[in-house]
Amino acid sequence: PNGVPTFTSADKAFSFQPVGRIHLDYGYNFQDAKNPDTRANKDITDGFNFRRAYIGFAGKAFNDFTYNVTADFPGRFNQSGRLQTAQLTYTGYKGWLIDVGAMQPAFTFEDSISSNDIGLLERPGINNVVTGLIASEGRLSAGVRTFGDNYFADVYLTGNSVNTSPFGSTTVLTSTGGATASVTSSAVTGVADDQKAAFARAAFRPINDEHTIVHIAGDVGYMYAPPQTNGVNAAGSHVLALSERPENRYGGLGSILNTGNINADSVAIYGGELAARYDSFWAQGEGYQIDVKRRKDLSTATNDPSFFGYYAEAGWVLTGQKRNYVANQGAFSAPTVDKPLNPGAGQWGTWEAVARYSFLNLNSDTWATNTANRVRGGQQEVWTLGLNWYMTSNVRFMLDYQFIDLKKYSSATNNTQVGDNWQSLGGRVQFTF
Amino acid sequence: PNGVPTFTSADKAFSFQPVGRIHLDYGYNFQDAKNPDTRANKDITDGFNFRRAYIGFAGKAFNDFTYNVTADFPGRFNQSGRLQTAQLTYTGYKGWLIDVGAMQPAFTFEDSISSNDIGLLERPGINNVVTGLIASEGRLSAGVRTFGDNYFADVYLTGNSVNTSPFGSTTVLTSTGGATASVTSSAVTGVADDQKAAFARAAFRPINDEHTIVHIAGDVGYMYAPPQTNGVNAAGSHVLALSERPENRYGGLGSILNTGNINADSVAIYGGELAARYDSFWAQGEGYQIDVKRRKDLSTATNDPSFFGYYAEAGWVLTGQKRNYVANQGAFSAPTVDKPLNPGAGQWGTWEAVARYSFLNLNSDTWATNTANRVRGGQQEVWTLGLNWYMTSNVRFMLDYQFIDLKKYSSATNNTQVGDNWQSLGGRVQFTF
Amino acid sequence: PNGVPTFTSADKAFSFQPVGRIHLDYGYNFQDAKNPDTRANKDITDGFNFRRAYIGFAGKAFNDFTYNVTADFPGRFNQSGRLQTAQLTYTGYKGWLIDVGAMQPAFTFEDSISSNDIGLLERPGINNVVTGLIASEGRLSAGVRTFGDNYFADVYLTGNSVNTSPFGSTTVLTSTGGATASVTSSAVTGVADDQKAAFARAAFRPINDEHTIVHIAGDVGYMYAPPQTNGVNAAGSHVLALSERPENRYGGLGSILNTGNINADSVAIYGGELAARYDSFWAQGEGYQIDVKRRKDLSTATNDPSFFGYYAEAGWVLTGQKRNYVANQGAFSAPTVDKPLNPGAGQWGTWEAVARYSFLNLNSDTWATNTANRVRGGQQEVWTLGLNWYMTSNVRFMLDYQFIDLKKYSSATNNTQVGDNWQSLGGRVQFTF
Repeated sequence: PNGVPTFTSADKAFSFQPVGRIHLDYGYNFQDAKNPDTRANKDITDGFNFRRAYIGFAGKAFNDFTYNVTADFPGRFNQSGRLQTAQLTYTGYKGWLIDVGAMQPAFTFEDSISSNDIGLLERPGINNVVTGLIASEGRLSAGVRTFGDNYFADVYLTGNSVNTSPFGSTTVLTSTGGATASVTSSAVTGVADDQKAAFARAAFRPINDEHTIVHIAGDVGYMYAPPQTNGVNAAGSHVLALSERPENRYGGLGSILNTGNINADSVAIYGGELAARYDSFWAQGEGYQIDVKRRKDLSTATNDPSFFGYYAEAGWVLTGQKRNYVANQGAFSAPTVDKPLNPGAGQWGTWEAVARYSFLNLNSDTWATNTANRVRGGQQEVWTLGLNWYMTSNVRFMLDYQFIDLKKYSSATNNTQVGDNWQSLGGRVQFTF
Repeated sequence: PNGVPTFTSADKAFSFQPVGRIHLDYGYNFQDAKNPDTRANKDITDGFNFRRAYIGFAGKAFNDFTYNVTADFPGRFNQSGRLQTAQLTYTGYKGWLIDVGAMQPAFTFEDSISSNDIGLLERPGINNVVTGLIASEGRLSAGVRTFGDNYFADVYLTGNSVNTSPFGSTTVLTSTGGATASVTSSAVTGVADDQKAAFARAAFRPINDEHTIVHIAGDVGYMYAPPQTNGVNAAGSHVLALSERPENRYGGLGSILNTGNINADSVAIYGGELAARYDSFWAQGEGYQIDVKRRKDLSTATNDPSFFGYYAEAGWVLTGQKRNYVANQGAFSAPTVDKPLNPGAGQWGTWEAVARYSFLNLNSDTWATNTANRVRGGQQEVWTLGLNWYMTSNVRFMLDYQFIDLKKYSSATNNTQVGDNWQSLGGRVQFTF
Repeated sequence: PNGVPTFTSADKAFSFQPVGRIHLDYGYNFQDAKNPDTRANKDITDGFNFRRAYIGFAGKAFNDFTYNVTADFPGRFNQSGRLQTAQLTYTGYKGWLIDVGAMQPAFTFEDSISSNDIGLLERPGINNVVTGLIASEGRLSAGVRTFGDNYFADVYLTGNSVNTSPFGSTTVLTSTGGATASVTSSAVTGVADDQKAAFARAAFRPINDEHTIVHIAGDVGYMYAPPQTNGVNAAGSHVLALSERPENRYGGLGSILNTGNINADSVAIYGGELAARYDSFWAQGEGYQIDVKRRKDLSTATNDPSFFGYYAEAGWVLTGQKRNYVANQGAFSAPTVDKPLNPGAGQWGTWEAVARYSFLNLNSDTWATNTANRVRGGQQEVWTLGLNWYMTSNVRFMLDYQFIDLKKYSSATNNTQVGDNWQSLGGRVQFTF
């Protein structure tokens, strides 16, 4: 279906297929120098970025096992390949899937949609922050999924992500957004224990017919052991920093929103999902709250910070096809491409228009009297308009135009505004198999 | 056989198959803080590690050539992929194989067993130290193997390993154990010549029938040109350091045993192998001596240090199958899996229990009057008990419990004990094709 | 044809094949210490180098799209894999190809020959410098090729190369020769815009029959926006450095020829190609000029520097076969291997002898009165003799002997000679599919 063969043994107990995914972005930021200019990022890089470049294998063995081993070679320059997925799934019980390995476990609606199929270039900020803490790609995971005609549910134990760089290196340029655990160089000397978390997601489809799908879901997550860098009770032992970029990655922009390090005892996450499709129209929205419980024994702060975000997104398949729904992920996939590009035959693929409003707040106790309680990670609002051209089922062009409004104070005690307000144009060439 | 198709041309002159190997470890170290505590590694990392993550291709071309090109994406975090194997073999003469490229040439019994098939999570320390000097994975090699019903022999010229990091970087966390040649940053400016070595291995099977196999072998190796970092006769020009970890890798533990840098003129290695199988019981043992000849013109040391180690390992395939023997490697492979997991049909795979005692001594002239002669790399004893569950021929779960006793003096002139004595529990999910 | 299967769907709309390419070099430099010795590189590394180690996929989808996704794992040691090619081509218009992605677009004759098929270990210095600026492997490119029985033409827009390391890191050891844009660490903070360039190449074959081919071509290129590291009008904002190694890469030699940083407004490149084949004899030659326009507002220099180089190369297929010509690249490929190695059948493959003279001048205004105008990048002359043994169509051994004469002044104001004059022996094992 995706342009590569799937090899299947005569008894159908075994199958095999190559995996490839290229997402090449190019973007430009419209920014003007002001005078005076306190903005922290007033001349953001314009340029290209291999957002994803996967090479791998997937298949089925002995009837009841499926696997996926994939490497990713992302980045703007000479950046190195790394493991993206190493997933083993046991499929021996009908309607149930048991997963173990490094994967992108299904947490939140948008993160359960394949990156090949998402409506805009990047997922909403709040989803990246939430999954960056305890789910997201390359996450060490063990869990169970169950699904049927009208429901999907999963529960996972998760650890670190193999895509997280714990050493604060320059590879931050291509790391997935969200939280990067500040497991600093002490990891090198062997004194760093992995984080531990659990999450669950449950989704229902009260309406699910040929024209109409309505999807309602809830998500809860809990990081009960943040990554440990020093001794259990030493200062700087369980440090988290939540951060995010303005919903684009071309040009290698680093995170502007950033809470700085928080000594955390645990993190609780909860939120909900709503999605619907009516023929070629679709809409989805989600909202999440993040409650961080501080290690107050290691800090002069007395409050537990909270962060939140939400978004609403809607799309219209201009050429009349419908978005599909993937039962074993509990989420949308791309619209059908029933007329792949063939100018001679008058076929021009599938076209789709998308719009989204997204809000993310990484501030907490911004004006607390005890300045140790202040977390001034910043907040961002992003409006995005997008146009997607599915030339075939495995070739897609995307064009996004963003209105970014980013507000951030210089520091906990300095009220200078270092955020910015600008527009950005980005495109993607995508081919996958 | 391993769950992926092998594609063969109609005339059988060509064949092709994908290669994948995932070894995902998770481990925990039982350690208590003491007071006072001089231990160098008193809080070893607990966590996961992708011990191996291979993606590659293997095949046959023009009847007489076979090849293997494989990359590895190991590690705990955002660590980069690297070349693992790039091997070309000429098979045109029956009973003979001519190899060239980067490979893991068959040196020592345990290192000739595929990492998919070894009885415990890691090979014995002495084998890692010995092969880390002149063989081991990713080693630039050119050589010849010959084998028949009752014998195996090989001889190779070897150079550097493409898996060795010569720059003392943080990638030590995932490098293969054994010696890491201290080719420091001078390599960057182009002043570093490769090491050169040769080895031979000869094995015989005096008994070799359906029930019983007895294997006897000898191994000799000689590094005649250690890696050169500066001018031939400059201080620090041919520097070696032997090191090893306590027979586990989860948690990214660095080497504790470490001789420090030795200015070496040459290194001689010799030892022997004994292995036997009687139906579902098997046993193997090896011992090696390492004699380093110093560059005495570049040092105040007057003695040539020697190091040694040995181990004994035994296993029992609880479900009655037998370990197999691979003629063209001269070593065991995994037991047969004739009843792959299928709970409905009452099939539960193959189960195996393994035990090992391993000893490694990287001390030499520990109490010499001339302290320049003292090499206090430390010594370790490790008892390991293991349980292996082969769910199918390509999916294996492993569980190891270790009793580690590690003794090391703080330095050549400081007799403080910095070693430790602890227990460790580790597991592995393995899937391969 | 190359020893791996190509899988084609029943309707021929889809096809797929794995891609592998191993080039393993080993080399030795004959150098003597002199006294006094001012040479900058008097003890060049002897050793091995994985010049190329590709793993990837190529194929066709929906009749009119072809793709290639390939990673490279080159280097001497623990160096990391990176993206090599991610190319999407639309083939829907006969005689035309539309390319987008990261690729090696066809610029200059030698660079349009596959690295599997080039006559000597490395391409001529001038080609590496020219393509290193605006073409070469891993280059972000969008363009069009057209070709027929007697012509080839292309035009491309290009950006950065994903194989360029912008951070001045140690990976320079394995980077492709030519220019490395000095996009320094400021890139990390997001203040670096990509370079932008365009080029065109047009080739004609006035004679093109079974025995004789004559090829004439012209190449022009223009970098209208060098990479921007700081603000547009800040010092050090558009910095280029042209550099090259002495036409070998084994041993990880860094560039000796190097212009140092030049603040550039634009770069113009023009030159010509001449190639011919008469049965088993072939010859080719090219010459290029590089004109750099300075940012004189940011420098005390008043002149615009120019650089140039050329080479002449000839070969003889000793066993009588012919080199082939690839119409859609406008360049030679390897000679046919109609008798693959099979000693039993008296078949010994194809043998070829090659010789080349190559000249490269990276000096400009060497003795200008205004020393700011002096660019003393050095000049090199290299004579190379080569012998190629094509054992099969996918296995090749190469042996090159070089006479290298390299002249370089210590600095713009110091006339000490730091170049060298030496001989070098290198070999390559190559297997590809």
